[in-house]
Amino acid sequence: MITASVEYRVPYADTDQMGFVYYANYLVYFERSRNELMRSIGFTYKEMEALGIGLPVIEAKINYHRPAKYDDLLKIVATCSWDHGIRLQIDCKVFRGEELLVEGYTIHAFMNLKTGRPTRPNEELTAKLTAL
Amino acid sequence: MITASVEYRVPYADTDQMGFVYYANYLVYFERSRNELMRSIGFTYKEMEALGIGLPVIEAKINYHRPAKYDDLLKIVATCSWDHGIRLQIDCKVFRGEELLVEGYTIHAFMNLKTGRPTRPNEELTAKLTAL
Amino acid sequence: MITASVEYRVPYADTDQMGFVYYANYLVYFERSRNELMRSIGFTYKEMEALGIGLPVIEAKINYHRPAKYDDLLKIVATCSWDHGIRLQIDCKVFRGEELLVEGYTIHAFMNLKTGRPTRPNEELTAKLTAL
Amino acid sequence: MITASVEYRVPYADTDQMGFVYYANYLVYFERSRNELMRSIGFTYKEMEALGIGLPVIEAKINYHRPAKYDDLLKIVATCSWDHGIRLQIDCKVFRGEELLVEGYTIHAFMNLKTGRPTRPNEELTAKLTAL
Repeated sequence: MITASVEYRVPYADTDQMGFVYYANYLVYFERSRNELMRSIGFTYKEMEALGIGLPVIEAKINYHRPAKYDDLLKIVATCSWDHGIRLQIDCKVFRGEELLVEGYTIHAFMNLKTGRPTRPNEELTAKLTAL
Repeated sequence: MITASVEYRVPYADTDQMGFVYYANYLVYFERSRNELMRSIGFTYKEMEALGIGLPVIEAKINYHRPAKYDDLLKIVATCSWDHGIRLQIDCKVFRGEELLVEGYTIHAFMNLKTGRPTRPNEELTAKLTAL
Repeated sequence: MITASVEYRVPYADTDQMGFVYYANYLVYFERSRNELMRSIGFTYKEMEALGIGLPVIEAKINYHRPAKYDDLLKIVATCSWDHGIRLQIDCKVFRGEELLVEGYTIHAFMNLKTGRPTRPNEELTAKLTAL
Repeated sequence: MITASVEYRVPYADTDQMGFVYYANYLVYFERSRNELMRSIGFTYKEMEALGIGLPVIEAKINYHRPAKYDDLLKIVATCSWDHGIRLQIDCKVFRGEELLVEGYTIHAFMNLKTGRPTRPNEELTAKLTAL
């Protein structure tokens, strides 16, 4: 199991007229933490794409406990474990200080970017993921 | 039970470098269909907010079957039934022609916009929802 | 000179906590009208890209006169004239009813999508643009 | 004259199918640097809003020199000088390393958030801006 996190300052752009962060933006926050998760295992998503492998999302779920607001300094934490399958679940939590605001997960499938078909992660990535 | 739908042409803005609609945008598509759903019962979300009642999302789930692409003409269909509670689930499906691309739901809680506390829908909205 | 327009209903997603449409979103609105402009000349942007030609924006300017708001039904009007050069200016205006809310322009350069280098529009597009 | 900057890692969300950061997103990047600019003078935008004063954008201009891409670590630099008027211009530049990718400016008007009318900055903000 591996965990990584990223800090994020909420811009005005992310708010809506209720004064809260608009609910779709949390999926972007989740992505930010996933990017750091992959960087932390020494194999960025960008490098994976350069090898012709993508990880599109096939399922996402989000529970909204408390609203984030403009100028909040958030911490987004991603956790992942891999069972050697062609799918990967990443759990994400969004905190403001100690307070858990939002949590959820995304499920991803390894995809051959040329064919658009499911694939297995390449050897190097498999090794990195297995070593976790 | 009530159903409403809206057509939507995918702009370049919604795509990502994989050539697909970025996964967070579907939550905005869901919102577009919810807005039409409320308009169709004769009580828009804007009117409800003017009465001091909001419907923030407390849970969302999305299943991504096939990617939408730039310039696709999508149809987003929202369906809702209400059991007189303080929560409301709205199911959404995104179609390209006959093809189901994405489906999911959102769960909403009626909220007093001044206090930020849960509330019940007002009489008029209750009547409209009950009549469905 | 050619003109095309598109209607657009403002979702909650586009608002910010000031209760206005967030200022970056108008550039997406401009894009929506450009897409219809190209469709109206019988050569969509998607078809142009399929031929390996893109039209990235190299300059944009926007004047914000009055704010658009949630649930507004906007009309975005794009106007374009082409002088046979490798650049193209498209002027856009955003209306709510008769009221002009926002106006601006974008300047685009024809680009070979494989090389990333400036290029000229192909023969068919040249003919279509010249016929205007 | 005052300058502040912020680092920003480009997420997949910001890209489009051309593989570049979609052109509207730079206005959000500009905002991120403006937020840090105000924080650096000891008077955040959030604090200003709490006093009932807003700074909506009335004009924006952007020149796109080179595209930013996914996973780029950008530096956005904002510079501002104030002539005691009711308007404020902020110049922004987006860098990747030493490379200038995008530059532009926004012009803002001090606005009374209750009345929606132009106003003057309050005493404390005037003092802070004058001290620059």
